[in-house]
Amino acid sequence: MNASEVIAKLQQHIRSGSESAVTSRENSSNGDSTVSSTDSRSDEIQETTTANGKRKAELDLDMPAPPYSLSANRTPKQTADLEEVPHGISRQARDLDSYVFPVHRLAEVLQDSAMQPLVIVACGSFSPITFLHLRMFEMAIDTIRELNKFEVIGGYYSPVSDNYRKAGLAPANHRVRMCELACERTSSWLMVDAWESLQPTYQRTAVVLDHFNYEINVKRGGIKTKTGERRPAKIMLIAGGDLIESMGDPNVWAEEDLHHILGRYGCLIVERTGSDVRSFLLSHDILYEHRHNVIVIKQLIYNDISSTKVRLFIRRGMSVQYLLPNSVIRYIEEHGLYLGMSEPVSNVLKF
Amino acid sequence: MNASEVIAKLQQHIRSGSESAVTSRENSSNGDSTVSSTDSRSDEIQETTTANGKRKAELDLDMPAPPYSLSANRTPKQTADLEEVPHGISRQARDLDSYVFPVHRLAEVLQDSAMQPLVIVACGSFSPITFLHLRMFEMAIDTIRELNKFEVIGGYYSPVSDNYRKAGLAPANHRVRMCELACERTSSWLMVDAWESLQPTYQRTAVVLDHFNYEINVKRGGIKTKTGERRPAKIMLIAGGDLIESMGDPNVWAEEDLHHILGRYGCLIVERTGSDVRSFLLSHDILYEHRHNVIVIKQLIYNDISSTKVRLFIRRGMSVQYLLPNSVIRYIEEHGLYLGMSEPVSNVLKF
Repeated sequence: MNASEVIAKLQQHIRSGSESAVTSRENSSNGDSTVSSTDSRSDEIQETTTANGKRKAELDLDMPAPPYSLSANRTPKQTADLEEVPHGISRQARDLDSYVFPVHRLAEVLQDSAMQPLVIVACGSFSPITFLHLRMFEMAIDTIRELNKFEVIGGYYSPVSDNYRKAGLAPANHRVRMCELACERTSSWLMVDAWESLQPTYQRTAVVLDHFNYEINVKRGGIKTKTGERRPAKIMLIAGGDLIESMGDPNVWAEEDLHHILGRYGCLIVERTGSDVRSFLLSHDILYEHRHNVIVIKQLIYNDISSTKVRLFIRRGMSVQYLLPNSVIRYIEEHGLYLGMSEPVSNVLKF
Repeated sequence: MNASEVIAKLQQHIRSGSESAVTSRENSSNGDSTVSSTDSRSDEIQETTTANGKRKAELDLDMPAPPYSLSANRTPKQTADLEEVPHGISRQARDLDSYVFPVHRLAEVLQDSAMQPLVIVACGSFSPITFLHLRMFEMAIDTIRELNKFEVIGGYYSPVSDNYRKAGLAPANHRVRMCELACERTSSWLMVDAWESLQPTYQRTAVVLDHFNYEINVKRGGIKTKTGERRPAKIMLIAGGDLIESMGDPNVWAEEDLHHILGRYGCLIVERTGSDVRSFLLSHDILYEHRHNVIVIKQLIYNDISSTKVRLFIRRGMSVQYLLPNSVIRYIEEHGLYLGMSEPVSNVLKF
């Protein structure tokens, strides 16, 4: 059998929708278990993956995006259906009736019992998800490790529902899918939760965090320690500096919601180079009261990618490569997202 | 045959070093040729690819990098050898005797005879290559298209040789390989040329551009137009704003080299947000003389990624995900690059 036959067979097999496909990592680690890691985090994930067996094939048949890939008058060359199981990524339910909270990458056992388990949640439009949204979680992991207090057991994107009615919002199912592609193709630990996106009405961030708390701590009873007891996970919201600044505006956030989010949960704030989140914390009564629940993440490498600019580039037929994953670019192409849109100029300049 | 068997077979087959593997794009496009593109650039590439049949399998068995993937005291989990043909990417010669100039993605026919064919060359350390190095070419494409004067027929990285003796320089064969992985995995048009990296002595940029001119215009006679005549390609150097500023320093550049580079070839300068390349051009006699051969590329999305910072993050065990392609991160891990290095603090602060 030559390589093209093997690939054809493989594609045919995967197209048949089998759920039994294994990841190439699982496959390659069969013959080699020289893992002597002192890094608890990745072990956790490895264990989860193997334990619940829910990890789907991640065989990446994705091709690099062609140049000029997003001009309006162009038929995409790559015809593989990114919506299908072939690409090995199961997709979330499209309605609440069949909704299931995703846990395939949530750690099942806390590696270090001295640590507090932590789940990080990003709320936002993700229209589309960019490398900055992905990088944000990596920066958080590095900052949290330095605190020597938490063990990150999971990370989730929770795209807002269509009821948010913000300019530039692609339909929720597309935004969820783009996040899924980005997580499954480029990360080994991030997940996407469609619950918020499926709600018939707009849900406040406080309610979304309550949902994560319910799923992880109430329904699942938190996470097991190595001695077998269960411990609740801390849920924290991760956000850019503009979010925390919006907390100074009473038209955006209700005081009781701020107390709920910052008191009961907590916030990880990515600080843009040049801005000063600490001073803002000092000036804001509620934020100051809950300052011990706010972790500031310094952005050591400045990065200006915004979804707004990505949408604009797409409308202008400009390249968005290396601003977001190729698989997401392909998906945008396939579905013709953002091309017909127009947005107020102020929107674009703000970012 | 279940999926794991297929994958195992595939891996086994590819490991055997077969060169006959096809790309999944070629494979999937067999049954579907609905391409009705008005985009000449990607057609070109498609044609080139099919015509010379040199395009290697790009089936991407690459996995997402694990979190904390680059801590010093960690054995990488993924054991597939990124050095081998398995990943479908042929590698350049390791010595000058077997060196061949790569042309597998160089267009063979100029699509629009009214345009001047253009080849873009990036000289630098690429230790390691980052998303900024990759993004630079995409920005160039967008800027050049607006000029309506050139048709980009190819893009090359030319990593400097080890004789450059700059701090933080990984061995040239690794730097070439990382560029290859990045190009083949994430781009559909960029290539890497090992010629400069294989030279026994340091080669000036003017000499490197002469080499590209020799390979493309002298040896190959330029590029064919649709009417069959051959036309020489313009060769241009692409660089960040710091390069053009260094041109003001007579210790860095000889005057005759500047005349050679800017007069005979030309320069594409990526202008950092906040800097002013035009004013610098005005102030510099030689640059001003050749100003028509200088194209300024506005950086619309600011991006601060530098190889220096990436190396620093790696040494500190911090995540570098979403700053460079996952395949390059894995390669760095596999070969333990940058871990043992130390660099003067001034180096890091400068960037």
